[in-house]
Amino acid sequence: MALISPSRRLRRTAFSEGVEAQGVKAYTVYNRMLLPTVFESIEADYHHLKNNVQIWDVSCERQVELRGPDAAKLMQMLTPRDLRAMMVGQCYYVPIVDETGGMLNDPVAVKLAEDRWWISIADSDLLYWVKGVANGWRLDVLVDEPDVSPLAIQGPKADDLVERVFGESIRNIKFFRYGVYQFEGRDLVVARSGYSKQGGFEIYVEGSDICMPLWNRLFEAGEDLNVRAGCPNLIERIEGGLLSYGNDMTDDNTPHECGLGRFCNTHTAIGCIGRDALLRVANEGPVKQIRAIEIGGDAVPGCDRVWPVFAGGKRVGHLTSAAWSPEFKTNVAIGMVRMTHWDAGTKLEVETPDGMRPALVKDKFWI
Amino acid sequence: MALISPSRRLRRTAFSEGVEAQGVKAYTVYNRMLLPTVFESIEADYHHLKNNVQIWDVSCERQVELRGPDAAKLMQMLTPRDLRAMMVGQCYYVPIVDETGGMLNDPVAVKLAEDRWWISIADSDLLYWVKGVANGWRLDVLVDEPDVSPLAIQGPKADDLVERVFGESIRNIKFFRYGVYQFEGRDLVVARSGYSKQGGFEIYVEGSDICMPLWNRLFEAGEDLNVRAGCPNLIERIEGGLLSYGNDMTDDNTPHECGLGRFCNTHTAIGCIGRDALLRVANEGPVKQIRAIEIGGDAVPGCDRVWPVFAGGKRVGHLTSAAWSPEFKTNVAIGMVRMTHWDAGTKLEVETPDGMRPALVKDKFWI
Repeated sequence: MALISPSRRLRRTAFSEGVEAQGVKAYTVYNRMLLPTVFESIEADYHHLKNNVQIWDVSCERQVELRGPDAAKLMQMLTPRDLRAMMVGQCYYVPIVDETGGMLNDPVAVKLAEDRWWISIADSDLLYWVKGVANGWRLDVLVDEPDVSPLAIQGPKADDLVERVFGESIRNIKFFRYGVYQFEGRDLVVARSGYSKQGGFEIYVEGSDICMPLWNRLFEAGEDLNVRAGCPNLIERIEGGLLSYGNDMTDDNTPHECGLGRFCNTHTAIGCIGRDALLRVANEGPVKQIRAIEIGGDAVPGCDRVWPVFAGGKRVGHLTSAAWSPEFKTNVAIGMVRMTHWDAGTKLEVETPDGMRPALVKDKFWI
Repeated sequence: MALISPSRRLRRTAFSEGVEAQGVKAYTVYNRMLLPTVFESIEADYHHLKNNVQIWDVSCERQVELRGPDAAKLMQMLTPRDLRAMMVGQCYYVPIVDETGGMLNDPVAVKLAEDRWWISIADSDLLYWVKGVANGWRLDVLVDEPDVSPLAIQGPKADDLVERVFGESIRNIKFFRYGVYQFEGRDLVVARSGYSKQGGFEIYVEGSDICMPLWNRLFEAGEDLNVRAGCPNLIERIEGGLLSYGNDMTDDNTPHECGLGRFCNTHTAIGCIGRDALLRVANEGPVKQIRAIEIGGDAVPGCDRVWPVFAGGKRVGHLTSAAWSPEFKTNVAIGMVRMTHWDAGTKLEVETPDGMRPALVKDKFWI
């Protein structure tokens, strides 16, 4: 791992003080903000996440807020997912596409009111696209980045922890729904969601001033639950098939290539900017697609670039995320493979920094 | 300095191999791409830059390409700088503003033809804003990120080095003008520009495949010039008053606050999206503005967050970039100060991580 130079441009978060006190060992940069990647070690963090409860500073999931009479119209322009049935209190995973159907981000939309939405973004300045669209189409809507810092509580004991701070009723929140809970007299949106398969919540902390008080309150409340600071875990998210925008897909890819066709209602999502471009791919299907891939041999090195994938000496795709899984005793990976070679059981070869290795297309991720 | 975790999302460049071979010691992340920050040490790199010639991998200055009948119209919509007199062969520093006059980026526009422009961007996804505007206003223009990797040649011996590779005529290129030169049979735009005050060129290398051949050719040609790999130098750029988007200004700031009023022709830049919002600030002037600030005491620590500035116990601004200058034997800094306290000679106090220090408003940067 290389060193990263400090600068204001790589923004600290309202939880950074707490993250540092918990001994963060490495970061990535996400939306020009510091996102922890390692506390004890990726493997130790992984085991802890699967057995306990962790508190994650995911402030880098910045919000794009849409407010005004045209907010819902604008939201539908951004995504091929049909939003007509979405109710206040729901969160939707929404691929965002440009006029060519290329993915610009894969955020979670939070419907706060008919005329007020948050878009909880992955790593790209979606704010700029939304502002440009709103300006060009002269929509009656305000678009900005509010002072909201998401804090994730993830792991099998997440319910136990949040109950102690927000009360028993929080257990009743269903998956991808949210409730509004109080902390220090302030209303906070708390959703059952998060970037792991271990279950848990995301607290949308509005107001930087209450971030550290909430952080400290959660750690106090969870002492006997063995609560620790954590972060999205590379191994666990690959096992679970959780895609990472910028790693596993870019604006070169359609949602269908990313296996997100089920979130595209191209026939009914009227008004979506990329709808026309996606109609054909929706009908005929993509020619390459995301797959779970197993890589043979010992633990692979860090995947910091595209690893080409071959079959019979011919390039048929690439891998973009890979890690050794202690639980499944193999290297788990995410890749994009051409349809000629994407069937489960297909044998491939992958070019890693330490040489060619055998690889295998799996029928599903490790869940 | 913290460690940074490897991932494809933090993109390597077509020069990364060369940068690593030259012993890069630290990076920053800029437009989700690796930008070197240190080779020998910030101070050793600084002295070398001021006396020799360096080759900088600034691939992270991604290009937004505008192509088509409406390209020039779109370019003028983006900036309050009047572009009517700009000719093919020129580069303009152009503040980019949204409809409120807030700065979205401060790139260099390169006019390749009446209907073809590159925008060489600072650290934000300007591509998204430009694509959104083009879509919303239904302009007849293609907007995308081409495979162009800028390589900067900076330092007093820059002319000597580029002459050896591109021929004597390259010495005639004027500041912020470019010429087209051949390398391995390909046309490359070479401009006299760059993010230092030591003079030099930026080569817009089109095609990743010729990046390393050009890198190697330049190092071979410059052996007796003591050429080294380098990067934008924190100390030198603060001394020279070169602003950094995301550090010294954000979308909260108008160009006028950043001292960029001279690039805003709000009365004649017809069509600029932020023109109306900037008219009043252009007439009355901003209430706070960027200033060169000297900080007393020993070398300051790295500035990774806003440092508040006070006068008589009252907050009057903040600093956002600071470093010890070996040449001027003081801490040089860039800050934003309210008009009540921005006159040269005004004494201030700045809150640094190791305590309050005296500070002084300078009449100009250290150039």
